[in-house]
Amino acid sequence: MLSFLSDYTEGAHPKVLQKLNELNMISLPGYGEDEYCLEAKNKIKKFCGRDDLQVQFLTGGTQTNLIAISTMLKRYEAVVAADTAHINVHEAGAIEYSGHKVLTLPSKNGKVSGQALEEYMERFYADDTHEHMCFPGMLYISHPTELGTLYTKAELKKLSEVCRKYDMPLYMDGARLGYGLVSPESDLSIKDIVELCDVFYIGGTKVGALCGEALVFTKNNMPRGFVTMTKQQGAMLAKGRLVGMQFDALFTDNLYLDISRHAIKCAMELKEGFLQKGYTLYIDSPTNQQFVILNPEQLERLSKIASFSVWEKIDRGHIAVRFVTSWATSEEDLHELISKL
Amino acid sequence: MLSFLSDYTEGAHPKVLQKLNELNMISLPGYGEDEYCLEAKNKIKKFCGRDDLQVQFLTGGTQTNLIAISTMLKRYEAVVAADTAHINVHEAGAIEYSGHKVLTLPSKNGKVSGQALEEYMERFYADDTHEHMCFPGMLYISHPTELGTLYTKAELKKLSEVCRKYDMPLYMDGARLGYGLVSPESDLSIKDIVELCDVFYIGGTKVGALCGEALVFTKNNMPRGFVTMTKQQGAMLAKGRLVGMQFDALFTDNLYLDISRHAIKCAMELKEGFLQKGYTLYIDSPTNQQFVILNPEQLERLSKIASFSVWEKIDRGHIAVRFVTSWATSEEDLHELISKL
Amino acid sequence: MLSFLSDYTEGAHPKVLQKLNELNMISLPGYGEDEYCLEAKNKIKKFCGRDDLQVQFLTGGTQTNLIAISTMLKRYEAVVAADTAHINVHEAGAIEYSGHKVLTLPSKNGKVSGQALEEYMERFYADDTHEHMCFPGMLYISHPTELGTLYTKAELKKLSEVCRKYDMPLYMDGARLGYGLVSPESDLSIKDIVELCDVFYIGGTKVGALCGEALVFTKNNMPRGFVTMTKQQGAMLAKGRLVGMQFDALFTDNLYLDISRHAIKCAMELKEGFLQKGYTLYIDSPTNQQFVILNPEQLERLSKIASFSVWEKIDRGHIAVRFVTSWATSEEDLHELISKL
Amino acid sequence: MLSFLSDYTEGAHPKVLQKLNELNMISLPGYGEDEYCLEAKNKIKKFCGRDDLQVQFLTGGTQTNLIAISTMLKRYEAVVAADTAHINVHEAGAIEYSGHKVLTLPSKNGKVSGQALEEYMERFYADDTHEHMCFPGMLYISHPTELGTLYTKAELKKLSEVCRKYDMPLYMDGARLGYGLVSPESDLSIKDIVELCDVFYIGGTKVGALCGEALVFTKNNMPRGFVTMTKQQGAMLAKGRLVGMQFDALFTDNLYLDISRHAIKCAMELKEGFLQKGYTLYIDSPTNQQFVILNPEQLERLSKIASFSVWEKIDRGHIAVRFVTSWATSEEDLHELISKL
Repeated sequence: MLSFLSDYTEGAHPKVLQKLNELNMISLPGYGEDEYCLEAKNKIKKFCGRDDLQVQFLTGGTQTNLIAISTMLKRYEAVVAADTAHINVHEAGAIEYSGHKVLTLPSKNGKVSGQALEEYMERFYADDTHEHMCFPGMLYISHPTELGTLYTKAELKKLSEVCRKYDMPLYMDGARLGYGLVSPESDLSIKDIVELCDVFYIGGTKVGALCGEALVFTKNNMPRGFVTMTKQQGAMLAKGRLVGMQFDALFTDNLYLDISRHAIKCAMELKEGFLQKGYTLYIDSPTNQQFVILNPEQLERLSKIASFSVWEKIDRGHIAVRFVTSWATSEEDLHELISKL
Repeated sequence: MLSFLSDYTEGAHPKVLQKLNELNMISLPGYGEDEYCLEAKNKIKKFCGRDDLQVQFLTGGTQTNLIAISTMLKRYEAVVAADTAHINVHEAGAIEYSGHKVLTLPSKNGKVSGQALEEYMERFYADDTHEHMCFPGMLYISHPTELGTLYTKAELKKLSEVCRKYDMPLYMDGARLGYGLVSPESDLSIKDIVELCDVFYIGGTKVGALCGEALVFTKNNMPRGFVTMTKQQGAMLAKGRLVGMQFDALFTDNLYLDISRHAIKCAMELKEGFLQKGYTLYIDSPTNQQFVILNPEQLERLSKIASFSVWEKIDRGHIAVRFVTSWATSEEDLHELISKL
Repeated sequence: MLSFLSDYTEGAHPKVLQKLNELNMISLPGYGEDEYCLEAKNKIKKFCGRDDLQVQFLTGGTQTNLIAISTMLKRYEAVVAADTAHINVHEAGAIEYSGHKVLTLPSKNGKVSGQALEEYMERFYADDTHEHMCFPGMLYISHPTELGTLYTKAELKKLSEVCRKYDMPLYMDGARLGYGLVSPESDLSIKDIVELCDVFYIGGTKVGALCGEALVFTKNNMPRGFVTMTKQQGAMLAKGRLVGMQFDALFTDNLYLDISRHAIKCAMELKEGFLQKGYTLYIDSPTNQQFVILNPEQLERLSKIASFSVWEKIDRGHIAVRFVTSWATSEEDLHELISKL
Repeated sequence: MLSFLSDYTEGAHPKVLQKLNELNMISLPGYGEDEYCLEAKNKIKKFCGRDDLQVQFLTGGTQTNLIAISTMLKRYEAVVAADTAHINVHEAGAIEYSGHKVLTLPSKNGKVSGQALEEYMERFYADDTHEHMCFPGMLYISHPTELGTLYTKAELKKLSEVCRKYDMPLYMDGARLGYGLVSPESDLSIKDIVELCDVFYIGGTKVGALCGEALVFTKNNMPRGFVTMTKQQGAMLAKGRLVGMQFDALFTDNLYLDISRHAIKCAMELKEGFLQKGYTLYIDSPTNQQFVILNPEQLERLSKIASFSVWEKIDRGHIAVRFVTSWATSEEDLHELISKL
């Protein structure tokens, strides 16, 4: 079975695992206070082009969203997000369980617009009864989005401007950030993201690590008590080295971007393959998640040779499905799949 | 520097890491639904001598305590624990952050007695105003305790009886369970624990894994919605395989007990070494944490050759310290330390 | 200034206040365990036509919604509601602060349909990933709705059927229940509500009391620990008599329905007045909240003689406003307003 | 039956009720934005001798404690309190339900000492692992305490100094503040309290009101979003007038202190009566709660003529009981009780 189900179906990139093997028996302090965590943070800062960032390692995506949002919001504030946002749909109400509402904006292809946000904010503060409502206190976006799409630099700039106008942090969920950064259609650099976002995370789990995400605060704005709150949430690993060493490997010799490029190259070939065979795209995605529309016969046939996920039943004759490439996608598998489309 | 600081200062036992290496490129479903998680759960059930257990993998100790307690308590209930319990002191208020009070009982050497619990329960229900108080809804104990001590079978039986009388689950924090099971002074088998506790966890992080704990429900009493609540807490790994494969290795060919035995053998030698050199024990611990009393001169001298932790300043001339052995303790280090005591 | 701003702008109905005066110096036990609370509960049960109801008094509407919802939902469940529901918009995120998501359905005139609910539930359980989402665990409706509209018996029956199919309690926010029960357009009796809802509340604050709501559990389904949870939420009055005595008065000699009828009579006259003067209704409301569309000139002119609230700016030339009648509306004021429309 | 059970067993002081009667039909804005709330706040500021205080009305004691503490603590902070504190024992875990631990200090006669607090704080910050623990973020004291005792000015000053040293607000629960202020043994004026505390509340429920407490922020330190958080907690009354008017009455013509003085006069007479008849005091309380030790025969005999509460069974032959006087205690009842002791 050819594996196109997701970007978390294999273990770690071999160089990441190699680092864990090499350093396995070294005795180190716990809770992320070891030298490899420090080294990895320094490499991430260098990658981001800034010395003054605050970097914290966490274990998974939902956990990172939960901690970033719940530690930055004030108690009476809510996070604003696209209605399709992962935190609104597929994280089991983690944000609400932490006490905060997710205020949703209509989205297009997984993205919210600066204009929609601005109108929302104006309407909110113009409402006489707004003290009886949750205050919008943060903007959440994902990049790439849940639908594989990317914000342009102009779009992110506009969102950032509105956020600053209302003194509201802009948070980017970068579970698949690597795949976005190297997309040929992206005009957003990591330096732009550092400048325009107040906090974002660099995803490891979906880009070559066994687990781990690097949360980056860009404005010296890491909340006081952050470490304690991480512990309080059950999110602090005793062996913090596990994540630190993996990020150390990912940010050595450009590994993070190199493996992202491989996945994007595969994804673009796959998209081209679908188009050449006459399939219709559900969304024209520039990243490693490719969405196409199948008819029932195609669905049945392709299900026998590859694993992928059904995204949405459009109507009786059309089903949107998702194929995902990753650092682990082999060219052999890719070519076999394309040949059998 | 000889490493006796803790049992989480090295990576994973080589056989555990080997399993991760071997299976690294296999493509598997996420979220713990892969065959290795299933296999590991089956091995744990066999180890426990029961087919009908419910096993769930989590990442760390505080997280496991938090999830076990917060998913089993009703909203108006509190967890009862020793005043020295980890959940009461060193978990950053995680239980309270989940909305529940920790009701403390006086403890002796880290343990609570069935009699103290029974008296507490009787007093609670005899109080006319108890509806204005948190209901005791669960008992938390650690085994080995934070002070390295162990409950006897008779002690656990008594606690279990009181818990059943009041229809209150008995939960055992087994962060270091392996070290307790193989202690020469223990008369508690894993089968006893399965019978007498309603839920407990088998610690991986401190017994040879990079991360991971196995939470075991013994009475078909896993709360409804458990998986969703795990996700809600940010505690579900996308690559659930990471924990599953490690427990698979730990419960193959008796590895879990074998490495625990090694640590206990080292700890007993170390204790004997201290005693022979005339040191006074702070607590006579039968497990891998050894507590001795040093004077300032000894503290300074030993600090130069080994890492260990200062537990408590007793008075100007006496300091209690903790030395910890583990699966990773080398005999060379141990003998060097003993020779230099 | 003629007062049509809301139904909570005056104190208590004179007979309610009289009861507080008469019984003021009687010494009674606290926390709602006095004989007047008991008597009031019995009168409410009689009013509902059932002996086996569980009635609890609380102080205000948001508090009652919060307690009803947060004590009945399981931790991994969310409450389903109309997008226009008070709990979703104007209660400052109280439900989310208690840890639960509000899942919204599109609404029409403030109401959700059984069909929309059923489709939602079917889609939810058909989704393979639904364990990663909040489970819909309760339905919230308001009756009358925030827009003054009423559910028909057939509509409520359908909602109730879907709820039962999915074993999900149906909760009715009856902040203005009295005004709904006596509306000439209502075909829903209190007995229907008792039968079809699992829990509802009879609003006091907006129907003649200084404060107080009566929460009614209809299926012997009051959550265990309810009194403790009420205390835990800071919602238990030491002088429970304050609410008990008021409900005792409201449910003596049909006062609750009589004063509701007065408000509805006034509202219908007012609506007729608007229509005769050629105004357009924003919504054709059968209860004590009347919504009409004004132009800027009308808005300015009427603002000088009466207090009412601006509901929504429709466009440059049209503003929707709300006039509210209550038990306290005087016929003189009403006629003066109508004459000046 | 002579009523000495508590200070919340009657309704409101007649002058308080009279105010509600007089103003009943006046139409006013809701949510505490009416002129009577404003007027009452001004009178309270005058009573406190400061113009720049922030005053907020709430409904009951547990609610006020909950809101004051949960809105002022940061998420990783706990409140420090006497082990006998009401918030630790009799408020159903409300503080923990809001996510915060109650850290307890040993107490004497219901009071904590500045020295104990200072030692606690020093120990906390000296602990290397304190980032894994809840940070002490606020001090809670009650005055009068749960045992009727009072802090001296010197004691409060010391507590205040320690709090300021650690930048930790000092919060006083003044459920029975009036009774403390007028006690002949008190050397603490309201101006001292305003100066030394960062936030405190003036209790209404137990000092003549039907319900209501006035929370006072003394350092321009009311948390941002306070009104929204009050709503979020379900603690905002639609008819805010209910509390505002009562406090208006209580702070007109010295009513609050006058009725407190009456209660204290009665309490001192009662204490004298007990002493003259040879009873032993359980605590020598200078306020309206009097604690004496009865033998079983006395308990049985007195139970037939008066209501009071059993506080604690000391041993087989001695029971501590509590008699409470209030604004509502009649001299006839008092003298009858004394004559029958």
